Amino acid sequence: MVKKPAPDATRRSESSRRAIHDAALALVGEVGYPRTTIEAIAARAGVGKQTIYRWWGSKADVLLEAFLDLSAQAAREAGGEPYVIPDTGDLAADLKTVLRATVDQLTDPRFEVPSRALAAEGLVNEQVGRVFVAKLLEPSLQLYVDRLRAAQEAGQARPEIDPRIALELFVSPLAQRWLQRTGPISHDYTDTLVDYALHGLAPR
Amino acid sequence: MVKKPAPDATRRSESSRRAIHDAALALVGEVGYPRTTIEAIAARAGVGKQTIYRWWGSKADVLLEAFLDLSAQAAREAGGEPYVIPDTGDLAADLKTVLRATVDQLTDPRFEVPSRALAAEGLVNEQVGRVFVAKLLEPSLQLYVDRLRAAQEAGQARPEIDPRIALELFVSPLAQRWLQRTGPISHDYTDTLVDYALHGLAPR
Repeated sequence: MVKKPAPDATRRSESSRRAIHDAALALVGEVGYPRTTIEAIAARAGVGKQTIYRWWGSKADVLLEAFLDLSAQAAREAGGEPYVIPDTGDLAADLKTVLRATVDQLTDPRFEVPSRALAAEGLVNEQVGRVFVAKLLEPSLQLYVDRLRAAQEAGQARPEIDPRIALELFVSPLAQRWLQRTGPISHDYTDTLVDYALHGLAPR
Repeated sequence: MVKKPAPDATRRSESSRRAIHDAALALVGEVGYPRTTIEAIAARAGVGKQTIYRWWGSKADVLLEAFLDLSAQAAREAGGEPYVIPDTGDLAADLKTVLRATVDQLTDPRFEVPSRALAAEGLVNEQVGRVFVAKLLEPSLQLYVDRLRAAQEAGQARPEIDPRIALELFVSPLAQRWLQRTGPISHDYTDTLVDYALHGLAPR
């Protein structure tokens, strides 16, 4: 039988865990992924290396959890639920709501600096790129797949489109402007993307 | 009066220039942007540092010209004209033609390895990112702006859309799949993007 920790020990664990997340995110933003070592994370968080190894297998695991935690926290601060796209029955309105929240997150420096460092590493380090896309990016894209499927069933999206490709028409432009700084990002911009994607560029 | 170089000297210059481009592209792919120095480029190209400084002001200038030259070369090998989007009067067909050629270029290792290294640097180094976007990426995006404007005049694209945003519906998904390896890229994929972007996701 696993002994249930006393409330004090749980609180202590939670605060260590948060300190380790914060240290990992700060380091990756400051020195990049290759130089963000378990040793450096431990030193910055004020814990022993063994504390980290007890909970995580590698620095990639620490960072994955830190990003998931940061995203959930940002969603709650924005007054929403993490990992949910609303379904009010109005596809355009729901997509605009979620993309506006994404714009807010992407321009929040707490998120932007470490995310940019991790994305840069993922471009040149295929293994890191694939792990983070599979664990961080793809699950959030699957939420759009589900919302678009519901829209297809409700007759708001064409039945023959592939939702996994369709979502890229509004998600990828925002991602590229943010990643490569190819243009400004704003709520107006993402609203426009949704309108163009739903109604098309050709005359109706 | 500027003395016209003898034919031999011109040929010699052109071959040095090409060797310097090749060395710069190879190095940035192998060791990344920060460690691609003028000294390293000169050593690899078998020329003196002064030869490089005579023609270019910085390593960024060498790389910019090397990428422009590589793109032009790839376009000619593919049987097309560099820096041109055809206008046959069929917008969908013309966009598909250009995006298929882009897929071929993005999956060509001569192009992919150095481009990925440069893009990664641009993500974390804002100055490098902005220069390369302004000089390499934006001019090629402006070709889509021009083609979409012609389509608007011909009644093939809605008059109220902003072409600079509209082009992102098919360009950015390809860019993100390539940059972040979020999915496979193929001619079928880019054809689908064009169809979705032109006709929209909502039922007509």
